[in-house]
Amino acid sequence: METLDAIMTRRSVRRFTGRPVDDATVRSLLEAAMQAPSAANEQPWQFIVIDDRAALDAIPSFSPYAVWAKGAPLGVLVCGDTRDLPFGDFWIQDCSAAIENLLLAAHALGLGGVWTGVYPLQDRIDGFVRHCRLPDGVVPLGFLVLGHPAEIPAPQARYREDRVHRNAWGA
Amino acid sequence: METLDAIMTRRSVRRFTGRPVDDATVRSLLEAAMQAPSAANEQPWQFIVIDDRAALDAIPSFSPYAVWAKGAPLGVLVCGDTRDLPFGDFWIQDCSAAIENLLLAAHALGLGGVWTGVYPLQDRIDGFVRHCRLPDGVVPLGFLVLGHPAEIPAPQARYREDRVHRNAWGA
Repeated sequence: METLDAIMTRRSVRRFTGRPVDDATVRSLLEAAMQAPSAANEQPWQFIVIDDRAALDAIPSFSPYAVWAKGAPLGVLVCGDTRDLPFGDFWIQDCSAAIENLLLAAHALGLGGVWTGVYPLQDRIDGFVRHCRLPDGVVPLGFLVLGHPAEIPAPQARYREDRVHRNAWGA
Repeated sequence: METLDAIMTRRSVRRFTGRPVDDATVRSLLEAAMQAPSAANEQPWQFIVIDDRAALDAIPSFSPYAVWAKGAPLGVLVCGDTRDLPFGDFWIQDCSAAIENLLLAAHALGLGGVWTGVYPLQDRIDGFVRHCRLPDGVVPLGFLVLGHPAEIPAPQARYREDRVHRNAWGA
Protein backbone atom coordinates (compact mmCIF):
# COMPACT_ATOMS: atom_id res chain seq x y z
CA MET A 1 0.00 0.00 0.00
CA GLU A 2 1.28 3.46 -0.87
CA THR A 3 2.45 5.44 2.14
CA LEU A 4 0.10 8.38 1.66
CA ASP A 5 -2.83 6.00 1.13
CA ALA A 6 -1.96 4.14 4.33
CA ILE A 7 -1.76 7.37 6.31
CA MET A 8 -4.99 8.79 4.86
CA THR A 9 -7.12 5.63 5.11
CA ARG A 10 -6.01 4.19 8.47
CA ARG A 11 -8.83 4.12 11.02
CA SER A 12 -9.15 2.45 14.38
CA VAL A 13 -10.41 -1.13 14.06
CA ARG A 14 -12.02 -2.69 17.12
CA ARG A 15 -13.58 -5.93 15.82
CA PHE A 16 -11.52 -8.82 14.56
CA THR A 17 -11.92 -12.24 12.97
CA GLY A 18 -10.71 -15.26 14.93
CA ARG A 19 -7.68 -15.67 12.67
CA PRO A 20 -4.35 -15.42 14.53
CA VAL A 21 -1.57 -13.06 13.43
CA ASP A 22 1.42 -15.12 12.29
CA ASP A 23 4.88 -14.65 13.79
CA ALA A 24 6.42 -13.14 10.64
CA THR A 25 3.76 -10.44 10.65
CA VAL A 26 4.29 -9.71 14.33
CA ARG A 27 7.99 -9.36 13.59
CA SER A 28 7.25 -6.89 10.76
CA LEU A 29 5.08 -4.80 13.09
CA LEU A 30 7.83 -4.66 15.71
CA GLU A 31 10.48 -3.81 13.10
CA ALA A 32 8.31 -0.91 11.93
CA ALA A 33 7.82 0.30 15.49
CA MET A 34 11.53 0.22 16.32
CA GLN A 35 12.37 2.12 13.13
CA ALA A 36 10.84 5.29 14.59
CA PRO A 37 13.03 8.30 15.23
CA SER A 38 13.93 8.99 18.85
CA ALA A 39 15.67 11.80 20.66
CA ALA A 40 19.44 11.25 20.39
CA ASN A 41 18.52 7.87 18.84
CA GLU A 42 18.03 6.49 22.37
CA GLN A 43 15.27 4.06 21.24
CA PRO A 44 13.77 4.04 24.76
CA TRP A 45 11.13 1.39 24.12
CA GLN A 46 10.16 -2.10 25.21
CA PHE A 47 7.36 -4.22 23.74
CA ILE A 48 5.22 -6.86 25.43
CA VAL A 49 3.59 -9.03 22.76
CA ILE A 50 0.45 -10.52 24.27
CA ASP A 51 -1.15 -13.48 22.50
CA ASP A 52 -2.10 -15.71 25.40
CA ARG A 53 -5.91 -15.91 25.42
CA ALA A 54 -6.28 -15.64 29.20
CA ALA A 55 -3.74 -12.81 29.37
CA LEU A 56 -5.68 -10.83 26.72
CA ASP A 57 -9.07 -11.54 28.29
CA ALA A 58 -7.93 -10.24 31.69
CA ILE A 59 -6.87 -6.80 30.42
CA PRO A 60 -10.28 -5.05 30.32
CA SER A 61 -10.68 -5.69 34.06
CA PHE A 62 -8.05 -3.02 34.75
CA SER A 63 -8.10 -1.04 31.45
CA PRO A 64 -11.77 -0.71 30.47
CA TYR A 65 -11.16 0.99 27.10
CA ALA A 66 -9.20 -2.09 26.07
CA VAL A 67 -12.44 -4.11 26.09
CA TRP A 68 -11.74 -5.17 22.48
CA ALA A 69 -8.80 -7.26 23.69
CA LYS A 70 -11.38 -9.96 24.53
CA GLY A 71 -12.11 -10.50 20.85
CA ALA A 72 -8.62 -9.97 19.48
CA PRO A 73 -5.80 -12.43 18.79
CA LEU A 74 -2.99 -10.00 19.59
CA GLY A 75 -2.07 -7.11 21.83
CA VAL A 76 1.13 -5.10 22.01
CA LEU A 77 1.94 -3.09 25.12
CA VAL A 78 4.39 -0.33 24.24
CA CYS A 79 6.46 0.81 27.20
CA GLY A 80 8.97 3.54 27.77
CA ASP A 81 12.23 2.36 29.28
CA THR A 82 13.09 5.32 31.50
CA ARG A 83 15.92 3.62 33.38
CA ASP A 84 18.75 5.30 31.47
CA LEU A 85 17.83 8.44 29.54
CA PRO A 86 20.69 10.93 29.80
CA PHE A 87 19.34 13.03 26.94
CA GLY A 88 16.14 14.01 28.73
CA ASP A 89 12.47 13.37 28.95
CA PHE A 90 11.46 12.61 25.37
CA TRP A 91 10.39 8.98 25.85
CA ILE A 92 6.64 9.66 25.47
CA GLN A 93 7.24 11.30 22.09
CA ASP A 94 9.63 8.57 20.95
CA CYS A 95 7.31 5.72 21.93
CA SER A 96 4.31 7.45 20.36
CA ALA A 97 6.14 7.66 17.05
CA ALA A 98 6.89 3.93 17.37
CA ILE A 99 3.19 3.24 18.00
CA GLU A 100 2.15 5.22 14.94
CA ASN A 101 4.67 3.32 12.80
CA LEU A 102 3.26 0.04 14.10
CA LEU A 103 -0.35 1.04 13.40
CA LEU A 104 0.49 2.18 9.87
CA ALA A 105 2.40 -1.04 9.19
CA ALA A 106 -0.56 -3.06 10.47
CA HIS A 107 -2.93 -1.22 8.14
CA ALA A 108 -0.57 -1.64 5.19
CA LEU A 109 -0.36 -5.38 5.90
CA GLY A 110 -4.14 -5.77 5.93
CA LEU A 111 -4.50 -5.89 9.71
CA GLY A 112 -6.41 -3.48 11.88
CA GLY A 113 -5.84 -2.13 15.33
CA VAL A 114 -6.72 0.41 17.95
CA TRP A 115 -4.46 2.41 20.31
CA THR A 116 -5.88 2.39 23.82
CA GLY A 117 -4.49 4.94 26.25
CA VAL A 118 -2.57 3.89 29.35
CA TYR A 119 -0.13 6.59 30.51
CA PRO A 120 -0.64 8.93 32.38
CA LEU A 121 -3.65 7.22 34.02
CA GLN A 122 -2.24 5.67 37.18
CA ASP A 123 -4.80 2.88 37.58
CA ARG A 124 -4.13 1.60 34.06
CA ILE A 125 -0.36 1.93 34.54
CA ASP A 126 -0.57 -0.05 37.78
CA GLY A 127 -2.75 -2.69 36.11
CA PHE A 128 -0.33 -3.31 33.24
CA VAL A 129 2.74 -3.20 35.51
CA ARG A 130 1.19 -5.95 37.62
CA HIS A 131 -0.24 -7.94 34.69
CA CYS A 132 3.02 -7.94 32.69
CA ARG A 133 5.39 -7.92 35.71
CA LEU A 134 7.21 -4.81 34.48
CA PRO A 135 10.38 -3.78 36.34
CA ASP A 136 10.73 -0.36 37.96
CA GLY A 137 11.32 2.31 35.33
CA VAL A 138 9.58 0.49 32.47
CA VAL A 139 6.39 2.52 32.06
CA PRO A 140 3.42 1.28 30.00
CA LEU A 141 2.43 4.06 27.57
CA GLY A 142 -0.14 2.58 25.20
CA PHE A 143 -1.79 -0.76 24.57
CA LEU A 144 -2.53 -1.74 20.98
CA VAL A 145 -5.24 -4.27 20.18
CA LEU A 146 -4.58 -5.92 16.80
CA GLY A 147 -5.92 -8.55 14.45
CA HIS A 148 -7.49 -9.28 11.11
CA PRO A 149 -10.31 -6.76 10.71
CA ALA A 150 -13.96 -7.80 10.90
CA GLU A 151 -14.92 -4.20 10.07
CA ILE A 152 -13.43 -1.72 7.58
CA PRO A 153 -14.26 1.80 8.79
CA ALA A 154 -14.56 4.35 5.99
CA PRO A 155 -11.72 6.87 5.72
CA GLN A 156 -12.37 10.13 7.56
CA ALA A 157 -10.93 13.44 6.29
CA ARG A 158 -9.53 15.36 9.24
CA TYR A 159 -7.70 18.29 7.65
CA ARG A 160 -8.69 21.59 9.24
CA GLU A 161 -7.45 24.81 7.74
CA ASP A 162 -7.99 26.64 11.04
CA ARG A 163 -5.21 24.59 12.60
CA VAL A 164 -2.62 26.00 10.18
CA HIS A 165 -0.79 29.28 10.79
CA ARG A 166 1.89 30.96 8.64
CA ASN A 167 5.12 31.93 10.39
CA ALA A 168 3.27 33.01 13.53
CA TRP A 169 -0.09 32.62 15.29
CA GLY A 170 -2.77 34.72 13.66
CA ALA A 171 -0.40 35.82 10.91
CA MET B 1 6.54 4.55 -2.02
CA GLU B 2 5.28 1.43 -0.25
CA THR B 3 4.38 2.02 3.39
CA LEU B 4 6.77 -0.53 4.85
CA ASP B 5 9.59 0.79 2.66
CA ALA B 6 8.89 4.33 3.83
CA ILE B 7 8.91 3.29 7.47
CA MET B 8 12.06 1.18 7.14
CA THR B 9 14.13 3.63 5.05
CA ARG B 10 13.20 6.98 6.64
CA ARG B 11 16.18 8.68 8.28
CA SER B 12 16.69 12.16 9.62
CA VAL B 13 17.83 14.56 6.88
CA ARG B 14 19.60 17.74 7.98
CA ARG B 15 20.99 19.21 4.73
CA PHE B 16 18.77 20.57 2.00
CA THR B 17 18.97 22.00 -1.50
CA GLY B 18 17.81 25.59 -1.99
CA ARG B 19 14.62 24.46 -3.74
CA PRO B 20 11.44 25.60 -1.97
CA VAL B 21 8.66 23.19 -1.01
CA ASP B 22 5.54 24.03 -3.01
CA ASP B 23 2.21 24.77 -1.36
CA ALA B 24 0.50 21.59 -2.56
CA THR B 25 3.23 19.51 -0.93
CA VAL B 26 2.98 21.48 2.31
CA ARG B 27 -0.76 20.82 2.25
CA SER B 28 -0.15 17.07 1.78
CA LEU B 29 2.22 17.03 4.75
CA LEU B 30 -0.34 18.76 6.96
CA GLU B 31 -3.13 16.45 5.79
CA ALA B 32 -0.97 13.47 6.72
CA ALA B 33 -0.21 14.95 10.14
CA MET B 34 -3.86 15.66 10.95
CA GLN B 35 -4.87 12.13 9.95
CA ALA B 36 -3.15 10.72 13.03
CA PRO B 37 -5.21 8.98 15.68
CA SER B 38 -5.85 10.93 18.87
CA ALA B 39 -7.39 10.12 22.22
CA ALA B 40 -11.17 10.44 21.90
CA ASN B 41 -10.46 11.87 18.42
CA GLU B 42 -9.76 15.25 20.06
CA GLN B 43 -7.15 16.22 17.41
CA PRO B 44 -5.42 18.56 19.89
CA TRP B 45 -2.90 20.03 17.46
CA GLN B 46 -1.95 23.33 15.85
CA PHE B 47 0.69 23.83 13.14
CA ILE B 48 2.87 26.85 12.47
CA VAL B 49 4.25 26.61 8.93
CA ILE B 50 7.44 28.66 8.83
CA ASP B 51 8.84 29.60 5.42
CA ASP B 52 9.93 33.19 5.98
CA ARG B 53 13.74 33.27 5.62
CA ALA B 54 14.36 35.59 8.55
CA ALA B 55 11.91 33.67 10.76
CA LEU B 56 13.72 30.38 10.01
CA ASP B 57 17.18 31.88 10.45
CA ALA B 58 16.31 33.21 13.91
CA ILE B 59 15.27 29.85 15.36
CA PRO B 60 18.70 28.39 16.23
CA SER B 61 19.34 31.37 18.52
CA PHE B 62 16.83 29.92 21.01
CA SER B 63 16.71 26.26 19.91
CA PRO B 64 20.31 25.25 19.17
CA TYR B 65 19.51 21.74 17.87
CA ALA B 66 17.42 23.38 15.17
CA VAL B 67 20.59 24.81 13.60
CA TRP B 68 19.62 23.18 10.28
CA ALA B 69 16.71 25.62 9.95
CA LYS B 70 19.27 28.10 8.59
CA GLY B 71 19.76 26.01 5.45
CA ALA B 72 16.19 24.79 5.05
CA PRO B 73 13.26 26.22 3.08
CA LEU B 74 10.57 25.04 5.50
CA GLY B 75 9.88 24.43 9.15
CA VAL B 76 6.75 23.14 10.85
CA LEU B 77 6.21 23.77 14.54
CA VAL B 78 3.78 21.20 15.92
CA CYS B 79 1.95 22.41 19.01
CA GLY B 80 -0.44 20.83 21.47
CA ASP B 81 -3.61 22.81 21.99
CA THR B 82 -4.24 22.13 25.67
CA ARG B 83 -6.97 24.74 26.11
CA ASP B 84 -9.88 22.28 26.02
CA LEU B 85 -9.01 18.64 26.64
CA PRO B 86 -11.78 17.05 28.70
CA PHE B 87 -10.58 13.53 27.93
CA GLY B 88 -7.24 13.92 29.69
CA ASP B 89 -3.58 14.46 29.16
CA PHE B 90 -2.83 12.58 25.94
CA TRP B 91 -1.84 15.55 23.78
CA ILE B 92 1.89 14.71 23.71
CA GLN B 93 1.11 11.25 22.36
CA ASP B 94 -1.43 12.55 19.84
CA CYS B 95 0.88 15.26 18.49
CA SER B 96 3.81 12.83 18.30
CA ALA B 97 1.77 10.50 16.12
CA ALA B 98 0.95 13.50 13.91
CA ILE B 99 4.65 14.34 13.65
CA GLU B 100 5.54 10.78 12.65
CA ASN B 101 2.83 10.82 9.96
CA LEU B 102 4.23 14.08 8.62
CA LEU B 103 7.82 12.78 8.54
CA LEU B 104 6.78 9.58 6.76
CA ALA B 105 4.74 11.55 4.23
CA ALA B 106 7.71 13.83 3.61
CA HIS B 107 9.98 10.85 2.97
CA ALA B 108 7.42 9.22 0.67
CA LEU B 109 7.15 12.47 -1.32
CA GLY B 110 10.91 12.69 -1.80
CA LEU B 111 11.52 15.31 0.88
CA GLY B 112 13.63 14.94 3.97
CA GLY B 113 13.32 16.28 7.45
CA VAL B 114 14.45 16.14 11.04
CA TRP B 115 12.42 16.30 14.26
CA THR B 116 14.07 18.63 16.74
CA GLY B 117 12.91 18.42 20.34
CA VAL B 118 11.18 21.34 22.05
CA TYR B 119 8.90 20.18 24.89
CA PRO B 120 9.60 19.69 27.81
CA LEU B 121 12.67 21.98 27.66
CA GLN B 122 11.44 25.29 29.05
CA ASP B 123 13.94 27.56 27.29
CA ARG B 124 13.00 26.16 23.88
CA ILE B 125 9.28 26.34 24.71
CA ASP B 126 9.67 29.98 25.75
CA GLY B 127 11.64 30.76 22.61
CA PHE B 128 9.02 29.34 20.24
CA VAL B 129 6.12 30.87 22.19
CA ARG B 130 7.73 34.28 21.79
CA HIS B 131 8.90 33.74 18.19
CA CYS B 132 5.52 32.48 16.95
CA ARG B 133 3.38 34.55 19.35
CA LEU B 134 1.54 31.46 20.66
CA PRO B 135 -1.45 32.05 22.92
CA ASP B 136 -1.61 30.63 26.44
CA GLY B 137 -2.29 26.89 26.34
CA VAL B 138 -0.80 26.27 22.89
CA VAL B 139 2.40 24.40 23.73
CA PRO B 140 5.19 23.85 21.19
CA LEU B 141 6.08 20.15 21.21
CA GLY B 142 8.44 19.59 18.29
CA PHE B 143 9.96 21.58 15.45
CA LEU B 144 10.42 19.87 12.09
CA VAL B 145 13.01 21.13 9.63
CA LEU B 146 12.08 20.10 6.08
CA GLY B 147 13.19 20.42 2.48
CA HIS B 148 14.49 18.67 -0.59
CA PRO B 149 17.35 16.48 0.63
CA ALA B 150 20.98 17.28 -0.17
CA GLU B 151 21.97 14.04 1.56
CA ILE B 152 20.39 10.56 1.51
CA PRO B 153 21.39 8.76 4.71
CA ALA B 154 21.57 4.97 4.33
CA PRO B 155 18.79 3.01 6.03
CA GLN B 156 19.64 1.80 9.52
CA ALA B 157 18.20 -1.45 10.91
CA ARG B 158 17.06 -0.84 14.48
CA TYR B 159 15.22 -4.05 15.39
CA ARG B 160 16.39 -5.44 18.71
CA GLU B 161 15.14 -8.80 19.86
CA ASP B 162 15.96 -7.95 23.49
CA ARG B 163 13.23 -5.30 23.45
CA VAL B 164 10.52 -7.91 22.79
CA HIS B 165 8.82 -9.88 25.56
CA ARG B 166 6.03 -12.49 25.29
CA ASN B 167 2.96 -11.95 27.48
CA ALA B 168 5.06 -10.68 30.39
CA TRP B 169 8.51 -9.31 31.18
CA GLY B 170 11.14 -12.04 31.22
CA ALA B 171 8.61 -14.63 30.04
